Amino acid sequence: MAAMTRDTAVDSRQEILHTAGRLFQQQGYDATSMNDIAAALKLSKGGLYHHFQSKDEILFHIMSHAMDITEERVINRARGIPDPEERLRTLIRLHIEVVLSARDREITVMLHENHPLPPTLRKRINGRKKDYVHFVENLIADVQRARGSKAGVSPRAAAFALLGMINWIYQWYQPQGPLTEADISRQYTEIFFAGAFH
Amino acid sequence: MAAMTRDTAVDSRQEILHTAGRLFQQQGYDATSMNDIAAALKLSKGGLYHHFQSKDEILFHIMSHAMDITEERVINRARGIPDPEERLRTLIRLHIEVVLSARDREITVMLHENHPLPPTLRKRINGRKKDYVHFVENLIADVQRARGSKAGVSPRAAAFALLGMINWIYQWYQPQGPLTEADISRQYTEIFFAGAFH
Repeated sequence: MAAMTRDTAVDSRQEILHTAGRLFQQQGYDATSMNDIAAALKLSKGGLYHHFQSKDEILFHIMSHAMDITEERVINRARGIPDPEERLRTLIRLHIEVVLSARDREITVMLHENHPLPPTLRKRINGRKKDYVHFVENLIADVQRARGSKAGVSPRAAAFALLGMINWIYQWYQPQGPLTEADISRQYTEIFFAGAFH
Repeated sequence: MAAMTRDTAVDSRQEILHTAGRLFQQQGYDATSMNDIAAALKLSKGGLYHHFQSKDEILFHIMSHAMDITEERVINRARGIPDPEERLRTLIRLHIEVVLSARDREITVMLHENHPLPPTLRKRINGRKKDYVHFVENLIADVQRARGSKAGVSPRAAAFALLGMINWIYQWYQPQGPLTEADISRQYTEIFFAGAFH
């Protein structure tokens, strides 16, 4: 019995990433050691290093997973909607849903953690982040064309404004607060489409 | 000559806060030790502790200073403007100016650092942050009244959306990038007042 190590029970790297993500979110990346992660998983340090060679590698995979989630649950579900305006409204709703879904701590780690990854890994994450910004930017341009907007607002600035509004939610949102997810979703969409004063 | 310590040359706590703010921003709060701060200032550890008893206390004073800057350079300059709409436009421009002014690293530390301060200190900072959100919220309500808005958008959600758009800028802005401060200021104001598609 005692010979059965906990290592064999960790059936996937996902559990490690999930626990590490929680620790990074709670106590910060820099303050979390590989020892802390192994201890929280009741894993030997060797068992942890078997899966990931370094804390940087864990952070990289958490961020990659966050981008996977964004692609699966936002981009892929919005992409197929033929009407550009409906596509953008859906994207706003889904992106808010992803930011607010507490179990996806990967998202918060990705939004918040500024710890510099080694250049190769950083480039890969930043490339995926930029792809997402471009997706949003192109979608905004599609809606501007469909509406015949006079383009006083550049799609790029508008994409950053929209992503800022939504990504910032993790900083102030409280589940017991007066604004529900549906409130935020509806009102942020209204603001982005028609401003705060119509 | 050798007897003259560097301590006497540190004429203000401000220099300590400024240097600590830079270190927190570059390498993270948790990864920065009191030793690092003392070394960067060429100060003895005793000299540093003479001014601040702990790293928490330094972080608290950096955040307080960031709130001082926000009050002096945003609230106090916007407050006196009689027309609500002009007051809000000015607040947006000044808040963007403060977020983008690279020398005020305190602002970025305040926006980014989630390290939990001891409860008493945290309450004081959070109280001042809430006061600022309320100021923006009331100003938005004033503009809605002045414009006879049908209040489809609550001033509270609108305040969080606006502050999110602006505060997020520190995450993506690059001085050599295509969007200048003036571009951002004008376009964010347009989006907030009339949406991205007029």
